[in-house]
Amino acid sequence: MRINRARLAGSMDALGKIGETARGGLDRVALTDDDRRGRDLLVGWMKQAGLTVTVDQMGNIFGVRPGTESLPPVFMGSHADSVPSGGKYDGQLGVLCALETIRTLIDARARTRHPVGMIVFTNEEGARFQPAMIASGVMAGKIPLEDAYNARDRDGRRLVDELERIGYLGAEPCVPRPMRAYLELHIEQGPILEEEQIPLGVVEGIVAISWSRITFHGVQDHAGPTPMRIRHDALVAAAEVVGGVRGIARKIGGNLVATVGRLDVTPNIPNAIPGRVGFSVDLRDPAESTIDRALSMLDRVVRAAAKREGVRAEVEHYWRVPRTRFDREVVDAVEAAAVTLGCGHRRILSGAGHDAQYMAAIAPTGMIFVPSRAGRSHCEEEFTALDDIEHGANALLLACAQLAGAQGRLR
Amino acid sequence: MRINRARLAGSMDALGKIGETARGGLDRVALTDDDRRGRDLLVGWMKQAGLTVTVDQMGNIFGVRPGTESLPPVFMGSHADSVPSGGKYDGQLGVLCALETIRTLIDARARTRHPVGMIVFTNEEGARFQPAMIASGVMAGKIPLEDAYNARDRDGRRLVDELERIGYLGAEPCVPRPMRAYLELHIEQGPILEEEQIPLGVVEGIVAISWSRITFHGVQDHAGPTPMRIRHDALVAAAEVVGGVRGIARKIGGNLVATVGRLDVTPNIPNAIPGRVGFSVDLRDPAESTIDRALSMLDRVVRAAAKREGVRAEVEHYWRVPRTRFDREVVDAVEAAAVTLGCGHRRILSGAGHDAQYMAAIAPTGMIFVPSRAGRSHCEEEFTALDDIEHGANALLLACAQLAGAQGRLR
Repeated sequence: MRINRARLAGSMDALGKIGETARGGLDRVALTDDDRRGRDLLVGWMKQAGLTVTVDQMGNIFGVRPGTESLPPVFMGSHADSVPSGGKYDGQLGVLCALETIRTLIDARARTRHPVGMIVFTNEEGARFQPAMIASGVMAGKIPLEDAYNARDRDGRRLVDELERIGYLGAEPCVPRPMRAYLELHIEQGPILEEEQIPLGVVEGIVAISWSRITFHGVQDHAGPTPMRIRHDALVAAAEVVGGVRGIARKIGGNLVATVGRLDVTPNIPNAIPGRVGFSVDLRDPAESTIDRALSMLDRVVRAAAKREGVRAEVEHYWRVPRTRFDREVVDAVEAAAVTLGCGHRRILSGAGHDAQYMAAIAPTGMIFVPSRAGRSHCEEEFTALDDIEHGANALLLACAQLAGAQGRLR
Repeated sequence: MRINRARLAGSMDALGKIGETARGGLDRVALTDDDRRGRDLLVGWMKQAGLTVTVDQMGNIFGVRPGTESLPPVFMGSHADSVPSGGKYDGQLGVLCALETIRTLIDARARTRHPVGMIVFTNEEGARFQPAMIASGVMAGKIPLEDAYNARDRDGRRLVDELERIGYLGAEPCVPRPMRAYLELHIEQGPILEEEQIPLGVVEGIVAISWSRITFHGVQDHAGPTPMRIRHDALVAAAEVVGGVRGIARKIGGNLVATVGRLDVTPNIPNAIPGRVGFSVDLRDPAESTIDRALSMLDRVVRAAAKREGVRAEVEHYWRVPRTRFDREVVDAVEAAAVTLGCGHRRILSGAGHDAQYMAAIAPTGMIFVPSRAGRSHCEEEFTALDDIEHGANALLLACAQLAGAQGRLR
């Protein structure tokens, strides 16, 4: 039993047209009109395949094919939203490989003891509503529904209102449900598989992640007649911290990555000394203790910059996800699938957060990685070769079939 | 002959209500609906005072009181637009003191050989349409009308379309016209007058100004799985230059001021390595040669940062205004007025650009400064005491009357 490569490629093309950018990337940010159009297409396909489709309170979409017994389902899934100027593989590929797996089981008339289903998660990227992975976070009981509903985008619109606006505010409770397993196929988003020329990553877990929000309050003033000696420039302090964050990564080394991805200047005009600058700090490492060390270094860097420039600092370490270890049985099932396929594979850790991270708290969870060209993602140049996608989708199919208790021959 | 303090204060209150912010500042950006409301109020006052009101192709408003002879007028003026979250003194005060001067001449039935007029300049701040002082720049023949018309705000709206939308696209040619003199009263926007407890600045000229636009093109990528060793982070490079710009000011010292006021990150989300960062560099000094030296240091800083981070740099030094020296006769007239008033004064150089800068190219020009509390401007905390404003307005009145050839006693 193997997936239908042409059908999968066709689905990728069709969904990738919705929100396609001029340069061939994807701009389908959560709960926009394009997100709705993408969801509608997916729901149509799920219904065509005969799945029972439901939508929960966070707009997560479920499509389930019954098993032969009344047992907890094996779910596969990912998200359908993108970052702005993102690519056509991050998220969308996992959703479509899940759909392709179910379509293949149906075509093969394969019977499974456990039901098999797919999930399309809402607002995984966190590009529009923070934090990222908000919908799986609610499902896992880690984020209160109320808080998620009140998350606002930069224009002040609430997540719940946007869910309703696009017609995906469902009635099903967004709570943990019994699951045999949760499997997510995703692009690696890093360079390792490509560098080592290995088509498939058996993901063992996800690094620990910490997000901080730092705001410097300086003194807004005219850039001309204000002598250097009386300035309190919020951007000068922020720039020192941007350099400092890079310095922390250099000093600690190893697998730590540290990024300032967002930075907003007020009033942001050429002839005013910036009065306020807010920015994000993203820290990731396999070891919790390394994150702790980086955070205390960050606090020192912020204090020193604020003192030097005479500005006031606000620091919020507002989001922390501990190191995630995936379920041994599920990881082994993925590895067994790769062996069955005879395709090169290695165990790997994810540097990016995924919905699988929260799912691991409520279900036996695993992930499959396919290579990212030049390790690039969250950009229009994101690319994975169809050969690699086929290997990954077949590994998903075989692992799913094994975990769902498929009857008959699987090879 | 003295201005009417209560009437001037009343006009400041009334105009300051249009676009007033919650914290008592002013947000009346050029060619917005509030700018139109402010202009309408001013035009109404000018007409009430019996002035002949005209509007030119750049939306500059002129109001003229005839003289006894057909001679070039003495013009006074400033601008009525503000920066976002600005104050109630920058620009507006000069316009209202010009109006108050004319009202006082009318009340006193003072006859002047030269006509006396006021000008309200369009988009002086450059907060919405770049460059700043665009309308006096066109008048002085330094900026082509076509270029000014095609200047676009961040939403892509053209200046000419916004002029038309608010009803201030006039028919009068925006060209140099014969002027006896141009006088502009303005807040200092720096700390010198306050620190030295001197109520009035006799402005001798304006420092040289240079604006640059720098863009770093890095590689946008996911902040999680992208190892530090393969990153090309446009914000890390930009932050190095922000620090470098501060370093240039420290190294050169003296009167040089150097500011990065605007900085825009793309895509500007916490979990993406910034792929592109654009920012402004504003350099000012009394000496042209110092600006030249700072610019070549800036080029070196940019090259070094781009090389270190492996990003591509685009540098445009797109706007340069040479050191302005005001007209000796006009400067002397302002000083004589201060002496007549018996008020403390000193000669001073402006660190900020003003419409007077371009006017100096086409008319004998001078300026009067009044103190800024804590040297602050371009912020809601901008403040000048009414006592100081009264001194300044009376100096404007006396200097104007002298230059216009007022008949009878001036003291």
